[in-house]
Amino acid sequence: MARASVPFSRSICSWLLRKIHKSIGHPNIRLSLGREEAPPSTVADILATVRIADRRTLAALALSPEVGFGEGYSEGRIEVEGDLVRLLEAVLASMRDANTISWYSKLVSRWLDRAQANSLRGSVRNIRHHYDLTADFYKLWLDPQLVYTCAYFPESFSTLEQAQVAKMDHVCRKVWLQPGERVAEAGCGWGALALHMARHYGVKVRAFNISKEQIFIARERAKKEGLQHQVEFIEDDYRNISGSYDAFVSVGMLEHIGTQNYENLGQVIHRTIGDAGRGILHFIGRNFPHSFSPWIRKRIFPGACAPSLAQAMAVFEPFNFSVLDVENLRNHYTRTLELWLDRFERSWDDVVKLLGTETARAWRLYLAGSIAAFRVGNLQLFQVVFAGAKCQKIPWNRAHLYSERPIEEKDPEWIRAMS
Amino acid sequence: MARASVPFSRSICSWLLRKIHKSIGHPNIRLSLGREEAPPSTVADILATVRIADRRTLAALALSPEVGFGEGYSEGRIEVEGDLVRLLEAVLASMRDANTISWYSKLVSRWLDRAQANSLRGSVRNIRHHYDLTADFYKLWLDPQLVYTCAYFPESFSTLEQAQVAKMDHVCRKVWLQPGERVAEAGCGWGALALHMARHYGVKVRAFNISKEQIFIARERAKKEGLQHQVEFIEDDYRNISGSYDAFVSVGMLEHIGTQNYENLGQVIHRTIGDAGRGILHFIGRNFPHSFSPWIRKRIFPGACAPSLAQAMAVFEPFNFSVLDVENLRNHYTRTLELWLDRFERSWDDVVKLLGTETARAWRLYLAGSIAAFRVGNLQLFQVVFAGAKCQKIPWNRAHLYSERPIEEKDPEWIRAMS
Repeated sequence: MARASVPFSRSICSWLLRKIHKSIGHPNIRLSLGREEAPPSTVADILATVRIADRRTLAALALSPEVGFGEGYSEGRIEVEGDLVRLLEAVLASMRDANTISWYSKLVSRWLDRAQANSLRGSVRNIRHHYDLTADFYKLWLDPQLVYTCAYFPESFSTLEQAQVAKMDHVCRKVWLQPGERVAEAGCGWGALALHMARHYGVKVRAFNISKEQIFIARERAKKEGLQHQVEFIEDDYRNISGSYDAFVSVGMLEHIGTQNYENLGQVIHRTIGDAGRGILHFIGRNFPHSFSPWIRKRIFPGACAPSLAQAMAVFEPFNFSVLDVENLRNHYTRTLELWLDRFERSWDDVVKLLGTETARAWRLYLAGSIAAFRVGNLQLFQVVFAGAKCQKIPWNRAHLYSERPIEEKDPEWIRAMS
Repeated sequence: MARASVPFSRSICSWLLRKIHKSIGHPNIRLSLGREEAPPSTVADILATVRIADRRTLAALALSPEVGFGEGYSEGRIEVEGDLVRLLEAVLASMRDANTISWYSKLVSRWLDRAQANSLRGSVRNIRHHYDLTADFYKLWLDPQLVYTCAYFPESFSTLEQAQVAKMDHVCRKVWLQPGERVAEAGCGWGALALHMARHYGVKVRAFNISKEQIFIARERAKKEGLQHQVEFIEDDYRNISGSYDAFVSVGMLEHIGTQNYENLGQVIHRTIGDAGRGILHFIGRNFPHSFSPWIRKRIFPGACAPSLAQAMAVFEPFNFSVLDVENLRNHYTRTLELWLDRFERSWDDVVKLLGTETARAWRLYLAGSIAAFRVGNLQLFQVVFAGAKCQKIPWNRAHLYSERPIEEKDPEWIRAMS
């Protein structure tokens, strides 16, 4: 590749490599450009080596390790010798301990905050960037039902397919769906959960999504399965959900709407289920407020933010919703992502054919980086069950989640929340 | 009783009764003073009647329904015809819907914020007010182990004794205690949980409490049970906890330390369990930030505050603790309090002998009011399980909480949080 050459001397390169290694908290990985490297080859116990192709890439890395690495890796100007996930894990852990963010990363982050704001129109643009990639791409590495959120593994040996079905059941049981009830779903992906709820729990679902491609596929599936009278797929923003429902379900949408819209979402939920309903939000979260890396926001998830629990409470507290149950499934997302990445690698040639090498490499980095982030605890996965102040019946405990038999309304495990 | 007479005419009394009834949101209860009443006797469907003895009491009620009712009821100047709990439930629900707080209640509330601040010395004063009441009093209506926090009823027919033991097991299982581990307990009451952990889970416990009376009794129990080498009871503030531990446990203390000290508590926890430990906080909470009624703070729980979940997160978020599990046991606290009040009433004569009629009536009102507050959802009970960023092992799911067999370290249900 012909690129503008950056006139660094070898000693400047060497100094920059050391500076970058220091700025990411001295992880046990090696950075190298030609014969220059940091730490030097005398240092042993190195997990993996980052090979930097040219001085321009080195300069970009020095400016912002996150954006520089993301762009360099995607474009093939950075190669990794060793395990990519372990490398990223080591770097994320050491960056967290070092607690340094470059001024350039901060600047990019600020700019993205403005450029990717989740207005009604902005959300459509942001969501289509990710979810309107052809479904053929996702079919290469997701489960057959195309569930693109954290799975739930009842056993350590459960397959991805089993675990995605188990996740959908876990969600349905958590909100104790009863036959004939009406459910609103916000952000329904390709429709797997909406169809599962209708098929196995006998509820009526109205499911919302602003990805045209996903809604189209979901509708086709409903027709094929004869569920089109029980499940309505609507191409619209969650802010426009109308009607009244017994339960509100949203799996993997909160990350996309932006913290400034949480109270707005709470208002939508309160408008649709009132004080008598209940619901569940399932979302990627954090231990404390923090942005996604600027590279992830630029290339993978425009406008996305994984909130801390305190931030997420802005959905519930203004509307007197009671939080009944929060479960952190971080370890299950690690497992899910490991299985996704495994399938992704096995379909590598097809992925490249569909998206080209650069996008394929960007996605590999995103999946590997997500595994690393969940492993070191930079990311969490929360399921929050909540109920309105006048919800008449709440399960007495959570034992029914761990029993084969679904809870039924006549069970003694029920108690009236108000007498 | 000879009291300064308040020169209200009958028509002013009648007007004040209507005004008070309106200010508490028109619940279906009747207020009466002599022959005056609101709503008038033509209104049917009345749950209970509040009989006000004199005009002075009426004036106090008009100034602040909460303080006026609390003081009036305690001193016998207010009597209730009908079920006290149902009356309070109706009033709490209608007050919440009406959303009115008198200026006088606000003023008292502000003053209490200052007067009852939880400095090291202030906390001692606040805690002794409640917990240094003679244990003979609590023995009259708590379970035999004197567990003065929300119980956990595995079955709807569990007794209070069974439910308190089940609660202690629920807590121990939630933090997956393993034999030989070291546990810090903050706010240990009369020692039941510390002794339970040592006896049944083989851990070493150092338990802290600033109530002299409680620590004395706890130490006696440890000796009697031969656990004095495994459990150390220390009369000191949680802020002075020293040493390093595998787990941090606190049941029913967070309500007493004041929201301004949450980050401080987080610091104490982080100092004692580091990034590798885990723990549980069990506390009375709320759906959104709100104070206890000024009467409760004045007479029953000086310096107390039940936080919303967002407020409680101030303990965890600054220290990169991961919240793993939140369970809302509000319905279990309702049941616990109902059983407490039932025992309390059956021991009424002994309670009066010990504390006098006025304090006995104040406690009856506090227990009845707490039942009402949990029933209408003004209060919640949260158990929050958390772990440090480097906690090596976290259970794979929560199924072990609902199984007879305790989880063991060799079980496949374990997963390393970091690989």
